[in-house]
Amino acid sequence: MNHIFSDRISDVPKSFLREILKTTVNEDVISFAGGLPNRDLFPIGEIKKASVKVLDEFGGDALQYSNSEGYLELRKWISDRYALKMGILVNPDNILITTGSQQGLDLIGKTLINESEYVAIEEPGYLGAIQAFSLYRPRFLPIPLHFDGLDLKTLQSTFQSYAVKLIYGVPNFQNPSGLSHSDENRDEVAKIISNSNTILVEDDPYGELQFQGEKRRSYFSRIPEQTVLLGSFSKIFAPSLRIGWMVAPDRLMEKLIIAKQASDLHTNYFGQRILHQYLTDNDLDLHITKIKEKYSKQKEAMISAIGKYFPKEIKYSNPNGGMFLWVILPEQLSSRVVFDLAIKEKVAFVPGDPFYINRTNANTMRLNFSCVDEETIETGIRRLGKIISDFIS
Amino acid sequence: MNHIFSDRISDVPKSFLREILKTTVNEDVISFAGGLPNRDLFPIGEIKKASVKVLDEFGGDALQYSNSEGYLELRKWISDRYALKMGILVNPDNILITTGSQQGLDLIGKTLINESEYVAIEEPGYLGAIQAFSLYRPRFLPIPLHFDGLDLKTLQSTFQSYAVKLIYGVPNFQNPSGLSHSDENRDEVAKIISNSNTILVEDDPYGELQFQGEKRRSYFSRIPEQTVLLGSFSKIFAPSLRIGWMVAPDRLMEKLIIAKQASDLHTNYFGQRILHQYLTDNDLDLHITKIKEKYSKQKEAMISAIGKYFPKEIKYSNPNGGMFLWVILPEQLSSRVVFDLAIKEKVAFVPGDPFYINRTNANTMRLNFSCVDEETIETGIRRLGKIISDFIS
Repeated sequence: MNHIFSDRISDVPKSFLREILKTTVNEDVISFAGGLPNRDLFPIGEIKKASVKVLDEFGGDALQYSNSEGYLELRKWISDRYALKMGILVNPDNILITTGSQQGLDLIGKTLINESEYVAIEEPGYLGAIQAFSLYRPRFLPIPLHFDGLDLKTLQSTFQSYAVKLIYGVPNFQNPSGLSHSDENRDEVAKIISNSNTILVEDDPYGELQFQGEKRRSYFSRIPEQTVLLGSFSKIFAPSLRIGWMVAPDRLMEKLIIAKQASDLHTNYFGQRILHQYLTDNDLDLHITKIKEKYSKQKEAMISAIGKYFPKEIKYSNPNGGMFLWVILPEQLSSRVVFDLAIKEKVAFVPGDPFYINRTNANTMRLNFSCVDEETIETGIRRLGKIISDFIS
Repeated sequence: MNHIFSDRISDVPKSFLREILKTTVNEDVISFAGGLPNRDLFPIGEIKKASVKVLDEFGGDALQYSNSEGYLELRKWISDRYALKMGILVNPDNILITTGSQQGLDLIGKTLINESEYVAIEEPGYLGAIQAFSLYRPRFLPIPLHFDGLDLKTLQSTFQSYAVKLIYGVPNFQNPSGLSHSDENRDEVAKIISNSNTILVEDDPYGELQFQGEKRRSYFSRIPEQTVLLGSFSKIFAPSLRIGWMVAPDRLMEKLIIAKQASDLHTNYFGQRILHQYLTDNDLDLHITKIKEKYSKQKEAMISAIGKYFPKEIKYSNPNGGMFLWVILPEQLSSRVVFDLAIKEKVAFVPGDPFYINRTNANTMRLNFSCVDEETIETGIRRLGKIISDFIS
């Protein structure tokens, strides 16, 4: 039985991350490897109340099949929030509820990518996007991500040399790096894209988790006709319900809905109703404030420990939001080598390799700060600092 | 902006069904067009108790990200039920929880179908499968479905002439026809498949809803190494949670899990926990008995009304389970013509066309009996009978 599998499934990178995470399940290990929101912050009591209310008041309605677009009241809520928080007008008809924003990536691949077409992606980039798009067999064009955003020279030359079908990025507090595109960078990137036929996929799961200051204007508000904007309730509510959404221009919506229907008919509707009930009966902003306060303290603890224990030549991001921080080791030092020693010292992180299209022994590491308390962060970073210092000296 | 869409999305048949269903939303219309389980039977109170218990006892655990395979205890429950009800041994490692069994179809397409490969499908066939597979651009080979199962002559010659990658069927109380494969038919079909490298997709959402008598042996128990078996909680619990599963041989599982992870990371885990709690605290068999009693009475009412009001030359299936019944009109009579008149008389059904790969003005119609009470069934069938009689006389 040869050739049983499709060519496309052979192209999907095996999740190195899965293997990494398995080694860190041990309770003794201080893990900066995960990518999870902090479970202590889930609004358990409120979700219970919402679940009971939905079943008491709507019963069978909330348990029946529903439409592929998603619950209209929830789409209206999302539309209202865009208007209120970002000054963006989005018609609920341009919002599609997805099974996590991961599914948004799959639907984009299904609907837009032909084999061998070009997809530009920031590098380091979100692994889930690389996996989702890989199934549709594009050729990836990496665009380096710097501390202030995309490398404009590479972007410019890439758009000059290739018919780029899609460009993908997480402009706010990116996974894995915690880096954001500056306003100036966005202006330039939007200008380059607007001179092309390229669709920008703006993935924004962390935008609501900005610790301080004014928010940056989204790409969607700059070039709405060329942007598909992805959002998620996983980081501001709870991930297990798998509820995300996508905002897309009219010309794309019909095909996206067909792809959605073929993929899973519709997103878990009981969950959509519970979520909407929760949003109706509670103050989401108050809840988000709590999350931001906690993550911000955890991030500060990590930054301050890095300052204390890491050699001075090590560079790192200091994100103003999200859940991740990025460390750049000296060029010749593979973070996989550091990882092997770190595991022996019972501290874990994710080595940079899987976040690149085609690179091994990268000198970068992803540190997650959302799931570890401040004291443990200090201990873990001290151990890591010792290992890195030993290599450098 | 030409060529924006992928070729694959252009191949997906537009859901004619969606359009049909829109015309039947009117409350005056007696609708046999839907394909929904009866909402009066959803165990609302029990789901409420299970939701509260899960949150009280497991809290954040049930709201966090989870693994792509699905909740292990739920997979064990499914494995135990196969052993108990069907005498089949399935390792929980060979079970993957999916976002409805619709997603199982998508994952099969992703993992197995290359463009232009051959997929055999019973005809009439389940529309959702045609849609899901279409995205991966196979060539479909229809195998006629008769009152006792697949047409063996066509099946034989198809397997002789083509390298059939997959064959898809719903052997128990099929949607749209309510027809089942007899034991003798299964024997012959399994023999033909076992002489090939073909994978059989055995989709079984209705098997638990058999009204009477002994159950037939599944294809999975006949040719396990060549079968992917799909199951669903939508018809025996509630559809809105979107929880189904697939059983696949070892050699397929790893790739299916990679495809699952790329598609939506994992199925709504809060829902999986609620479902498992429900299954632990309640007697599912008792619940299924209630569903079967109701559907069986509704089916009897439909059969008896058809006997009374349809011209004698009309053929129809008399299913021993499921939710649908199939009517075959005289060869020259398009059911779309009947549909147009029926809507004027405020009764709806689904004309057969969308259930064929490539046929219009088919003389067949799908009637759903699970959502309409017995008295209304009589009224609706009387109206339909009048229209059909007028055509024939």
